[in-house]
Amino acid sequence: MRRSALMVAATGLLAGASILAPLGAYAATDDHGGAARNDGDQTAAIRESIVDGPAKNVILLIGDGMGDSEITVARNYAQGAAGEFAGIDALPLTGQYTTYALNPDGTPNYASESASTASGWSTGTKTNNGSLSVDIAGTPQSTLLELAKANGLRTGNVSTAEIQDATPGAQVAHISARGCYGPVETSVTCAEEALENGGLGSISEQLLTLRPDVVLGGGSATFTETAVGGDWAGQTLFEQATERGYQLVNDAAGLEAITAADQSAPVLGLFTEGNFPTRWVGPEATVGGGDLAPVSCTANPERLNTGLSLASLTDKAIDLLSADSEQGFFLQVEGASIDKRDHAADACGQIGETVDLDEAVQSALAFAKADGNTLVVVTADHAHTSQIVGSTPPGLSVALTTEEGQTMLVSYGTANAGESQQHTGSQVRIAGYGPGAANVLGLTDQTDLFFTSSNALALNTDLAALSAGAAVTLDQATVAPGTDFTATGSGLAADWRAAGEVGTEASGEPLGVADVIDGQAVFIGTAPSEPGEYSVTLTGAQTGVSVSATLTVTADAIPATPTPTPTPTATAPAVALPGTGPSAGAAAAVVGALASTGAQVAPVAGLAALLLAAGGVFLVIRRRRHHAAS
Amino acid sequence: MRRSALMVAATGLLAGASILAPLGAYAATDDHGGAARNDGDQTAAIRESIVDGPAKNVILLIGDGMGDSEITVARNYAQGAAGEFAGIDALPLTGQYTTYALNPDGTPNYASESASTASGWSTGTKTNNGSLSVDIAGTPQSTLLELAKANGLRTGNVSTAEIQDATPGAQVAHISARGCYGPVETSVTCAEEALENGGLGSISEQLLTLRPDVVLGGGSATFTETAVGGDWAGQTLFEQATERGYQLVNDAAGLEAITAADQSAPVLGLFTEGNFPTRWVGPEATVGGGDLAPVSCTANPERLNTGLSLASLTDKAIDLLSADSEQGFFLQVEGASIDKRDHAADACGQIGETVDLDEAVQSALAFAKADGNTLVVVTADHAHTSQIVGSTPPGLSVALTTEEGQTMLVSYGTANAGESQQHTGSQVRIAGYGPGAANVLGLTDQTDLFFTSSNALALNTDLAALSAGAAVTLDQATVAPGTDFTATGSGLAADWRAAGEVGTEASGEPLGVADVIDGQAVFIGTAPSEPGEYSVTLTGAQTGVSVSATLTVTADAIPATPTPTPTPTATAPAVALPGTGPSAGAAAAVVGALASTGAQVAPVAGLAALLLAAGGVFLVIRRRRHHAAS
Repeated sequence: MRRSALMVAATGLLAGASILAPLGAYAATDDHGGAARNDGDQTAAIRESIVDGPAKNVILLIGDGMGDSEITVARNYAQGAAGEFAGIDALPLTGQYTTYALNPDGTPNYASESASTASGWSTGTKTNNGSLSVDIAGTPQSTLLELAKANGLRTGNVSTAEIQDATPGAQVAHISARGCYGPVETSVTCAEEALENGGLGSISEQLLTLRPDVVLGGGSATFTETAVGGDWAGQTLFEQATERGYQLVNDAAGLEAITAADQSAPVLGLFTEGNFPTRWVGPEATVGGGDLAPVSCTANPERLNTGLSLASLTDKAIDLLSADSEQGFFLQVEGASIDKRDHAADACGQIGETVDLDEAVQSALAFAKADGNTLVVVTADHAHTSQIVGSTPPGLSVALTTEEGQTMLVSYGTANAGESQQHTGSQVRIAGYGPGAANVLGLTDQTDLFFTSSNALALNTDLAALSAGAAVTLDQATVAPGTDFTATGSGLAADWRAAGEVGTEASGEPLGVADVIDGQAVFIGTAPSEPGEYSVTLTGAQTGVSVSATLTVTADAIPATPTPTPTPTATAPAVALPGTGPSAGAAAAVVGALASTGAQVAPVAGLAALLLAAGGVFLVIRRRRHHAAS
Repeated sequence: MRRSALMVAATGLLAGASILAPLGAYAATDDHGGAARNDGDQTAAIRESIVDGPAKNVILLIGDGMGDSEITVARNYAQGAAGEFAGIDALPLTGQYTTYALNPDGTPNYASESASTASGWSTGTKTNNGSLSVDIAGTPQSTLLELAKANGLRTGNVSTAEIQDATPGAQVAHISARGCYGPVETSVTCAEEALENGGLGSISEQLLTLRPDVVLGGGSATFTETAVGGDWAGQTLFEQATERGYQLVNDAAGLEAITAADQSAPVLGLFTEGNFPTRWVGPEATVGGGDLAPVSCTANPERLNTGLSLASLTDKAIDLLSADSEQGFFLQVEGASIDKRDHAADACGQIGETVDLDEAVQSALAFAKADGNTLVVVTADHAHTSQIVGSTPPGLSVALTTEEGQTMLVSYGTANAGESQQHTGSQVRIAGYGPGAANVLGLTDQTDLFFTSSNALALNTDLAALSAGAAVTLDQATVAPGTDFTATGSGLAADWRAAGEVGTEASGEPLGVADVIDGQAVFIGTAPSEPGEYSVTLTGAQTGVSVSATLTVTADAIPATPTPTPTPTATAPAVALPGTGPSAGAAAAVVGALASTGAQVAPVAGLAALLLAAGGVFLVIRRRRHHAAS
């Protein structure tokens, strides 16, 4: 009779046998059927697992560098050859996808890296190695996280790497060089894209502007840099984050204390200056290392002493993002150092990180199964070097004693000792669970994952359309010359910032640039000194959508109690600025010209109270008084 | 707008643009969605592709050593990074399976080879490296091909390798060492298993006895060896094959002339002495080879000059096996030299063989789609060394100019120059189409493929039960002493040979051993000289099922025209010999004792005519007269 590994393990348990060996270990694999993993015909179960979209939520878990070889290395070590990961291996729908990049001329590059690959699934657009979420021409491409936010979903970005690293970075930034983490490096390496030169700014600065609800990872060092340009020039990025309303945490206790995360108070949790220390350590592979006595991996004493793990961060992110039972979310989770330790020919390092990711996948699956309306996808960005071999190869190798007590030889043959082992160009596994997951089957490309995810969430990818319902409301339609008024933009769903202007057709005066919070941006301006009819115009920085209301300035008596204008609506249809649309970069450049100098964050007590009473917290802009551009 | 590669190619075609670039080449991959492979949501299409078994036919195509890296290397080269194989990449249902082997003590061996792996899917039982379709204790395990035949299906075995090589060998033989191709090597390396020592014989001899309907491949050299033991001792295996009724062919014209293949006249087509020459040739990888000027692969002038390819052999096999519209079939097809050229660090060689396999997959899919009731599975036995890298590695490498004009670096880092590059232990892709194919999804083990296939064909795996309906018929129930009689066994579905005996409880005299053709075996014996009641007993060599009829020997007058006995039935229930059952080896050993000496093939004209008239061709046994064993 055929027995599954599960049945054998259960039998062993019932018989009181030792269960130290992992589930599915070799005890019964020599029986006919003893090594089989399927428990009878799976057709009905697979059919049942195919669920039509849309999904309410998408959780995308990336094992950086986690090719099929890396998965097998880790499984053999941690679960036994016949074992399985409770997370990674448990997704029912599986396929392979290609991960090639492009050269700047558009020809294929068969060996990709994490920036081009992460850009691929983040945006649906292939790009060249090193670039983040711009196409090969440098044009920004909307990311899943941006689109999710623009479509009213909550968003999260979790990684064991520096949060500016390629995989998390691709969801939040558009930049030509993945190394432009902060303002210092950006001024040098990505000068055209620096804020001081009218660009979108460094990865960290773009992250702060995009304002995901939950960001958890490493990379705090960059946030101690001082902004060179933009509205927070001269301040550190941490100071900027605080001023823009972020909840900052840097340890487990701080994270534990966070009970909510939303656009009003997003969470930025940065737990290490650089990447997280790995979970496990062991000997690095050496020439002839496969002939040395095999060793086991050990826990890394320098592992996050706060007790945090990728799974605990994933759990917290899911808790925060799913708090509103009506609002869906998009969450990306990266196990980053599978790749980094593979580069270092460190088998134990990469294995421990795979185990760590597996636990995060378990967290995601547990939520998805309970929720019933969440798509979970697990994949890699690209394959990597490590290979399981039968005898010591000429390059670097290491012999490990796996947890089932057997020797496994791992070969690293793409670089010399001390150099970085190379990514490899193999197609990699992609696996899914939940509504829309059937799209991972067969052969797909990395860019398909963008569509799989955006289609599952039924995302409208037309940013301008998402902000087309914008409107501007003035607290007073008629004001005395030189008195303050408040202009509130609403419905700017696909804009992270908006610029305001008051003026006539002939000339205008900036009201500054404000963060858009839940589609709303508030500006406090001062009425022109000349009586007349003026337009107050707000323009979304990402979409270029522009909406106006009329402000009448008169020296006549003004009613003591201001009456808000009865919902002045957007100029219909909303007009996108030339050359914008899906191109956030172009739009930002245009808005940058409008924004001119020195907008400041300065909460206005009365207004803040009013807005709080209305259920939200708003940041408002008080412009510095100056003349319109001549 | 999103465009699929297909749409782009079609657009190019319609516009009259050059279509030299392969489908999906890089022309549009820099557009948003331009590299995506899915054409919209695939959920409905995937759901439709999930079909319940049973299937009428199973075609299993193996790319030896065809890990995900090897597939990608070949796709990049031949189809472009954005292209796809029309066969390999076209199967809708995909997963990954583990390929580990066992050590002789039952512990896992993380680096397997083609014998242990082929045994895994052929039998559902894991074994140690080097062994073919025996478990780690050496006990033979029934193979898919054997079970398919025993269940009344036609069977085929096609390979570009020597037909005795591990992958094709595992379906037809049970032996401890994969190298025991023929009687010469077997006498030395596998002595206990040699026919002269009562074993099952060499791989080639077991193949001849199993009698698949269609066998096409290389390896003719072994068939020129002379049998050392068994019923054809002193004759070459080719002579044996002819005597046992095989249709022998060795070139395309010969194969073309074959119009039918069945148990009466199976086809044994051996087109090369060893393995097939590869389809493509190119430079082998060298140290620093990645830095040399990239080159393209070229056609191998020594490729089968008969014009045969794996696809043409697959087509022919399918034609022959599907000729009877009622009878299903099991066919295994192997592209063997992906592995062999990977061992040799020969990228062009392995790529060409992958292309060759792809065409065979196309053939199988074309049949399956037209047939509507065929399961097609494409997978590998194990992963291999070759890796796509971005810069020249320290080990062996080669730079190729792909057919889309780009440079691809392929690294071989698991052995030194001149040594054999190693298999690697990564999980590999498995893909399926047709009834039961959903069982390949997710993570399975290689041994699951046995159950996926046998369940799809609804195979009864109890060989003894399949022969339990056996019966023996005598042409004369009453004979004069010393006269000839004919005993015909029928219903021996799960036996490839049967032994006969005539005698009493106290002693018996062998009738020899006969091939079982379509469940029937015919024996011509001579009645004992002493009048009395005798049992004529036939015993299946594989199942041990034994059936008897009573033969009355009398000196009284016998009717001139013999009247066949009215269907004497098997002793009910059929009694398996002790220690047999599924163990063909043990059964064969017992039957070997019964068979004793020198049975000969000697067609008897009259009987042959009679049997031909009955619709079949039968080989009959005339025993050499001798005394019962004392």
